[in-house]
Amino acid sequence: MNGAESLVATLAAGGIDTCFANPGTSEIHILAALDREARMRCVLALFEGVASAAADGYARMTGRPAATLYHLGPGFANSLANLHNAFRARVPILNLIGQHATYHLRHDTPLTSDIEGLARQYSSWLRTSSAAADIGRDAAEAIVAASAPPGRIATLIVPADAAWNGGGIVAKTPPVPKPPVPNKEVIERAAAMTRSSLRTAFILTGNALHGEGLATAGRISAARNCKLLAPYPFTRLERGAGTPRVDRIHYILEQAAAQLQDFQQLILVGARPPVTYFAYPGKNSVVTRPDCEVFELAKPEEDGVAALKALESALDVQTPATITAKQEPPLIPAGSITLSGVSSAVASLLPENAIVVDESMTSGRALMAATAGCPPHDWLANTGGSIGIALPMAVGAAIACPDRRVLCLSADGSGMYTLQALWTMAREGLNVTTVVYANRNYAVLQREYSGLGIGDPGKRAKELLEIGRPELDWSLLAKGMGVPATRVESMEDFVKALHDGLESDGPRLIEIVL
Amino acid sequence: MNGAESLVATLAAGGIDTCFANPGTSEIHILAALDREARMRCVLALFEGVASAAADGYARMTGRPAATLYHLGPGFANSLANLHNAFRARVPILNLIGQHATYHLRHDTPLTSDIEGLARQYSSWLRTSSAAADIGRDAAEAIVAASAPPGRIATLIVPADAAWNGGGIVAKTPPVPKPPVPNKEVIERAAAMTRSSLRTAFILTGNALHGEGLATAGRISAARNCKLLAPYPFTRLERGAGTPRVDRIHYILEQAAAQLQDFQQLILVGARPPVTYFAYPGKNSVVTRPDCEVFELAKPEEDGVAALKALESALDVQTPATITAKQEPPLIPAGSITLSGVSSAVASLLPENAIVVDESMTSGRALMAATAGCPPHDWLANTGGSIGIALPMAVGAAIACPDRRVLCLSADGSGMYTLQALWTMAREGLNVTTVVYANRNYAVLQREYSGLGIGDPGKRAKELLEIGRPELDWSLLAKGMGVPATRVESMEDFVKALHDGLESDGPRLIEIVL
Repeated sequence: MNGAESLVATLAAGGIDTCFANPGTSEIHILAALDREARMRCVLALFEGVASAAADGYARMTGRPAATLYHLGPGFANSLANLHNAFRARVPILNLIGQHATYHLRHDTPLTSDIEGLARQYSSWLRTSSAAADIGRDAAEAIVAASAPPGRIATLIVPADAAWNGGGIVAKTPPVPKPPVPNKEVIERAAAMTRSSLRTAFILTGNALHGEGLATAGRISAARNCKLLAPYPFTRLERGAGTPRVDRIHYILEQAAAQLQDFQQLILVGARPPVTYFAYPGKNSVVTRPDCEVFELAKPEEDGVAALKALESALDVQTPATITAKQEPPLIPAGSITLSGVSSAVASLLPENAIVVDESMTSGRALMAATAGCPPHDWLANTGGSIGIALPMAVGAAIACPDRRVLCLSADGSGMYTLQALWTMAREGLNVTTVVYANRNYAVLQREYSGLGIGDPGKRAKELLEIGRPELDWSLLAKGMGVPATRVESMEDFVKALHDGLESDGPRLIEIVL
Repeated sequence: MNGAESLVATLAAGGIDTCFANPGTSEIHILAALDREARMRCVLALFEGVASAAADGYARMTGRPAATLYHLGPGFANSLANLHNAFRARVPILNLIGQHATYHLRHDTPLTSDIEGLARQYSSWLRTSSAAADIGRDAAEAIVAASAPPGRIATLIVPADAAWNGGGIVAKTPPVPKPPVPNKEVIERAAAMTRSSLRTAFILTGNALHGEGLATAGRISAARNCKLLAPYPFTRLERGAGTPRVDRIHYILEQAAAQLQDFQQLILVGARPPVTYFAYPGKNSVVTRPDCEVFELAKPEEDGVAALKALESALDVQTPATITAKQEPPLIPAGSITLSGVSSAVASLLPENAIVVDESMTSGRALMAATAGCPPHDWLANTGGSIGIALPMAVGAAIACPDRRVLCLSADGSGMYTLQALWTMAREGLNVTTVVYANRNYAVLQREYSGLGIGDPGKRAKELLEIGRPELDWSLLAKGMGVPATRVESMEDFVKALHDGLESDGPRLIEIVL
């Protein structure tokens, strides 16, 4: 058994069942080992940023790591922007990166690079296997490192000779350690805070935003009249009729500050104190009121769900959660496309148990309010601010949940970074309906520019802010990658296309001309 | 004057006339400054890997650095794969990367990253400006650092508050230092080597592969009966009728070893000793014969052209170079597409002074032989082995040389990494004719797989080696980004499309179905 075979067998035995891959020559032996491992589903991406976001989406929906497979430093480098998002999402991912044979590195051949240097800041666990006999053990450790809650990125670099040499040993993956639980003093302090008359909100992250965690937070919220908030960049939010209401903290500084003005106490569950994405001249990045007490109930590496359960016990309340009421499908306006009309249409048609992947940027600001009372669904957001996540994250979510419908909402500018994801949707026959909001602008930048108070952008700045010359035709781009597509210019056509997309098997794309 | 204005004014005064950009919120003030700087051409890329390869292509053709502009760490990360290629090409590039305001970094907001950590290995000069008053000086230093022969990557990170604060100072760019010249002993040793009866070849890189450098090498080669070689990954090779003949070292190990078997002496001009790209089990990476003396006439950081001229003086020969004869246009076969037919068609139609950007991979192996006697032209190759360079490098070459025709030859798999370059070709109206060889496979990997001696790839490995299910339709992809395109399935149609492309203004794409 060679090192590559021990690697793949260790991963499969350790529960890794999916590999998002874009391999090259130095990974050929791993490829050959994957060829003979029926427990692993291999999904080809035509660009590595598709693989990293797909692994992120997979992890958000399963709670488990997928593997990725990249070709040397430059191939891995293409994964970094979406790996940044995954790192910020605190999801488990197991990166496999090929490296030149150990004895070949000294020649400094064209593809040689410092892979560890590229991987370090986004890897909670990082190792280069030194020999075939070590790869199995290294892989097992990587699985544990990635899987340890709340989920981490583990990166294993595999030299080609370690992969092809004999002497590989399949390793058994040890149990994943449970995350630490906050101590009693912390729970009691949080309990005292919720008992006070001060206006209090929880900021929830990770597992506290869905399932048992959210249900517990919902009961505490109802009992102690606290608000539940999610950071603007949340990982996965369960929402819709029957779920406790969670408000998303606004993106825009003034709106976030107004929203948080109410609260004298903030209790963080895995969250960081709320600040704006960006700094602005003369403005404060911190959006909480100056007298707000910010208290950490659970650190990011602690068990937020256990912390909430302990808090509920400490409060000794048995109040049912206040849940969001089911809403009647809103009326959908006819005629020309409007953003509010699109939001209403999505709200009317969103199927139960859908997964919404949202990178609609400025065009989608009305979407979450419109869909609050829809049938229950999950919402996945961009966690790291690196745009180009939606299409490939939809790939990963759809592979993780083949029985659910995925609705992928993307701005046109964002979608262009990783449009190659459409091809993987077509190849894998994924039930993803992608809606592209074609406003033909980097609209978020135009808004920021206008906010500077230096007047409107001139001709040269506009060249860098507008993407409408030439017009992108997303319908052609999708068809060019095998995804049936429609371009719509009326609400009626959008509703029909969205309905068809959500009812049909396989991927569809709808380009909304705004 | 704010820091951003001093930055842009310093760059423009220092001769930086082109900026390949994909900016974001933290670069808005730089954008505003660019808006008012008429000396700088700003070229928008929809993906950062387009910008980095475009800057590479621009530098290869002008010898001067373009600026690039990226949004924080993740935006810059998208540039890295092609920056790797540029680093290996030893071309000048000046990267500008926005960073959060200095006082905002402590909040560790979603887009925060260690930009220096990402940039370090590909930057010969790296700095984060600490205040508005420093940016001008830093930019001037960066210009010098990038421009110092043979060309380096300089990376300047600009915090948002350093950009927006007042107190910016425009700096004058000091003269660029001349590269060191090899000492007399080195020249004399090389002269003695060429005078010996041992079979000798020069391996040329950088400026020694075109213009005065190549002409000098040609005369030495003729006088001393030495061979001129280029590494497989060369930066820019002047070739065609009337130029000295340079043979490219083969990619495939056995072919390279056979080619170099002839030579008992190799004289390197900026080159590294020839080795294979990859290691293979049980094979030697070194492709020179064991008794070959490898001598460094000029180190990469030395002036290779001056070294060749000094060598010519030392040899005291006045022999005209042996130049490549003009070839008659080859006959182009009719009927079904064949790779040799495509090479013949390219050889027949290649216009004088064309720039060929070649990432045709396995499909293009016959191209260079077929075009050796074409009208003089430049050939640009992939220097770092990170695929996805051709389309965006064609953008940069076309912007650098608006009066020349660019022929971009890309494999279909390679093209998919950075297909967004097509949009920039359309926006800028560039005279680039792109030929995509659609073999619907990662053919180079299939060949490597077969070379392992473990039999043919099975179904699961094939899934990762074949990209033909679903078929990509490059004609639709190009049209979707505003580039007129044709799909051809016969030699007659290819010849017509290639002729039309090379005669028309603006970009065209031809997909060859293989």
